[in-house]
This record gives sequence, structure tokens and C-alpha cells, in this order.
Amino acid sequence: MQLFDGYIFDLDGTVYLGDKLIPGAQETIGRLREMGKKVVFLSNKPLQTRYDYAAKLTKLGIPTTADEVVNSTFVLAQYLKERDPQALTYVIGEQALLSDLEQAGIAYTLEPDKVDYQVDYVIVAFDRTFHYDKLNHALQAVKKGAKVIATNGDRTCPVEGGEVPDAAGMIGAIEGVTAKKIDLVVGKPSEITVRVALSTLQVNAKNCVMVGDRLETDMLMAKTAGIHSALVMTGVTNKQMLESSAVKPDLVLDSIAGLLE
Amino acid sequence: MQLFDGYIFDLDGTVYLGDKLIPGAQETIGRLREMGKKVVFLSNKPLQTRYDYAAKLTKLGIPTTADEVVNSTFVLAQYLKERDPQALTYVIGEQALLSDLEQAGIAYTLEPDKVDYQVDYVIVAFDRTFHYDKLNHALQAVKKGAKVIATNGDRTCPVEGGEVPDAAGMIGAIEGVTAKKIDLVVGKPSEITVRVALSTLQVNAKNCVMVGDRLETDMLMAKTAGIHSALVMTGVTNKQMLESSAVKPDLVLDSIAGLLE
Repeated sequence: MQLFDGYIFDLDGTVYLGDKLIPGAQETIGRLREMGKKVVFLSNKPLQTRYDYAAKLTKLGIPTTADEVVNSTFVLAQYLKERDPQALTYVIGEQALLSDLEQAGIAYTLEPDKVDYQVDYVIVAFDRTFHYDKLNHALQAVKKGAKVIATNGDRTCPVEGGEVPDAAGMIGAIEGVTAKKIDLVVGKPSEITVRVALSTLQVNAKNCVMVGDRLETDMLMAKTAGIHSALVMTGVTNKQMLESSAVKPDLVLDSIAGLLE
Repeated sequence: MQLFDGYIFDLDGTVYLGDKLIPGAQETIGRLREMGKKVVFLSNKPLQTRYDYAAKLTKLGIPTTADEVVNSTFVLAQYLKERDPQALTYVIGEQALLSDLEQAGIAYTLEPDKVDYQVDYVIVAFDRTFHYDKLNHALQAVKKGAKVIATNGDRTCPVEGGEVPDAAGMIGAIEGVTAKKIDLVVGKPSEITVRVALSTLQVNAKNCVMVGDRLETDMLMAKTAGIHSALVMTGVTNKQMLESSAVKPDLVLDSIAGLLE
């Protein structure tokens, strides 16, 4: 099939499923690298840092460094670093998000009721320690003028044997009590994520392909950005979902193994 | 002014503000009772039981028994008792809700992951102990077919010096992860609450008046049910909100003190 200069791979459902590589992933990525192609891994998941994902890929047999990974906590931290580096943030999220904010030099508090100055942004992510007090902190910050930015808008996160609530739960709670939509979601399919991915690859959109398993994030984002889109059927999307979707990928593959066939 | 056979009073913002009676409340309700009028107090708040509200009113100088009070936890328990008395419920809420379910003989679990049988309803209320695991329990129950019923849909609850997240936060979280609206909200302005209030009063709608401070709950409910509506300006509604609202009460009073003038 057609070759591109840059390859953007979604992770879960595309390169691996849980803790197992999808057959052919190692070989495909290895061959692309041998051909001198640029590769970046792109995940919406805000529970680990780029370093964690690079370590996981390396351990699974795909040697990867952190700067070949872009995830939503990294994108959010980069967004604020460029846009509003002096901002004070209140974070509803887990350790990976705090680490990425620290690396980007973004100030945060976890106790906004105890600081004297105004919180500029409430940052919201998939947070397995979410509770009522955090929701209240968010409400009070928004009432004083804080904007709300989320890492990702995913409804649920696949886990072994099912799925668990993702960031859409935390976002829904905040929207419920503030009676308005949050200001921004930086993760896929946002153009903010596309920009970070392309600047990591250093390749133009039209010379890139996005390989992923989700129509409403991976494929929609590629379409919107003018990146070629290749759907793999190893993740959440089945044939019926593909047929009834308004998003039509350029290419549909049984799996990542078919990418170079 | 016109007299009615039945009087339905909202509590917070109408009869009292926090822990203080609104001037004239005691005298007005006392005179109505002397005239042989039926009185019921109607609150959306799911943090206390009818017994608690009766005790509070009595302590403030308005002698009241539990059967003169209707609140959203009582309405919800009565609804299930009539509709589906054998149901198993999973509860996101506080002790008052559990007490009302117990009194109504409705079974509940707080650990739906540890029961072998299917949860029929997820019950959602203002819950200051809401956290991620509860959201996950709700998601799993809904995926297996449980309906979701809320006590009330209030966005926030007024507290001294401001407001805190109310049930809309918990509802928003569940709607966010299930990607659909919850099935039912029984509290004001629902007709389910009207029915319980009228059956408590034993008076026809057209011979009743609803006295309350909220346009979108108290006044809307009265209008929909064919009950006379009297807005008091001692709670959350100001003149501007009244002017811009599509809900037009039959009567606007400075306070409950004006009800018999």
C-alpha cells in the first residue's frame, strides 16, 4: 500500500490490547523505522505519562523513547505552557497529569479553597479519586471565573472484561453543576492534539497517516486535519459501527499487520 | 387576598433561610391553621427526612409533624413502593434516603458489585460522599439494564455564603459516562411530587396554592398541575429573573408575610 513520511499510531486497540501486542505490530513498526519513516504514538489516556507509555512499548518489544509518545496530559501541559505559562490551575486528575504539569512549569494547587489567589483553570481528567469535594472546588473556581479544560472527553475506558468511567464522568458532573459546557477538551479529536503530534513528527499533515481503532476520535481527527486515516478493526469499532458512522476512514484494515501489505 | 383550602409551602427561601424563620412565617401558618386550612411543606432536599424537617420547623416555632412534610427522598421511596416494591436498588445518596427506602420497604445495596442479582434501579441524590467508585457502580448497573431515578435535579444547594453542588452533579456524571439522559427525576417540578403533596393535603389541585421561591421548580410545577402559584422574593429569585422567565406566577409576594394581606 501507499507509503507516508509520518505514521501516527493510537495505542490501546491499535498497537496493543491491554498488556499484549497485537500480532504484527512489532514487525510493522520495525519495518517503518528501517525505511526511515517517522513514528509517533498518540493516546488520549491521562493515567500515565509519556515515559510510562514508552517504557511499556519498549518492554513489549517496540523500543520507544518518551519523545515518540504524545498523550493528553502532555498535550494539556504543553497547551498551557505556550498559552498561559503563569496560570494557576486546580487539578482533578491523577499523578501523571501532575507530573506533566510540573515538567511544563505549570503551577497547580490541589486545595484551591486554601489559596488566596484566583485559580485560572480547572483541569479535568479521568480521575479514579474523583469525589464530591473536588466537584465543589471546581464549582467555586468556575463561579470566580476559572475556565475548565479537560485532557480528554472519552466516555469510558476499556479494561479487562469491560469498561470503567473515563473523563466524561468528571466533565458531566462539572457541566451539571455549572449549567454550561466546559471550555476546552485538548485530547483527540482536537486540533490541539494534532498540532502537537505533527510537530513531534516534523512532517506535514498530508504526508501523514493516522492509524487507530476509534471513529469518533482517531478517524475524525485525521479527517479534520487533512491526515490520511486508517481504521483498524482490533479495538472498539465493529463492522456495524463503521457502516452506520458518518466518519469514513480512507482505509480499513483488519489490523496494524495489514498496514504495509 | 383569595383563600384556598390547601397550602403547599416550599421550605428554604420561603419559610426559613438556613436556620432563621422568615419574618411573618410563623404568624401566617398559624392563622391558616386556625382557619382550618390544610398545610403541607414541600422540599426537594434529599439530605434530611420528613422527621428532621418537622423537628426543625417545630423548633423554629411552627409545630409540625412528619406527615405534614413531603420531600424528595420520601417521594422517591413512595414511588418505588407503589410501582415496584420488589425492586433491588443501588443508592448514591446519604442516610436520609436510605432511611426513607427502609421505611418504604425498598431493598437497597451499597455494594452492587458484591451481589449476585441484578440491580433494577440506580437511585441518585445530592450526595456529599459521591466518588468515582459510585459512578463506576452506576455505569455497570446501567450496562446490565438498571434504570436511573433521581430524587431531585437541582444544580446547586444554597449554603451560608454561597452554594454547593447538588444532585445535578451526580446526574451529570452518570449521563456523561452512559451517554444518555437518566430515566426520571421525581422531585419538583415533577408531577410525581405534586401527586404526593395533593394526596397528603387531600385537597384538589384547583383549591390549592403553591408558595415558593423558585420559578423553575415551585412555580413551574404549580402551573403544570393547575395549582395556584405564589412566588415569594425571599429566596433565589430576583426581579430580573422573574421578568426574563417564561414562567409567570399568578401572584408575586415580597414574602410569606404578604400571603394573607
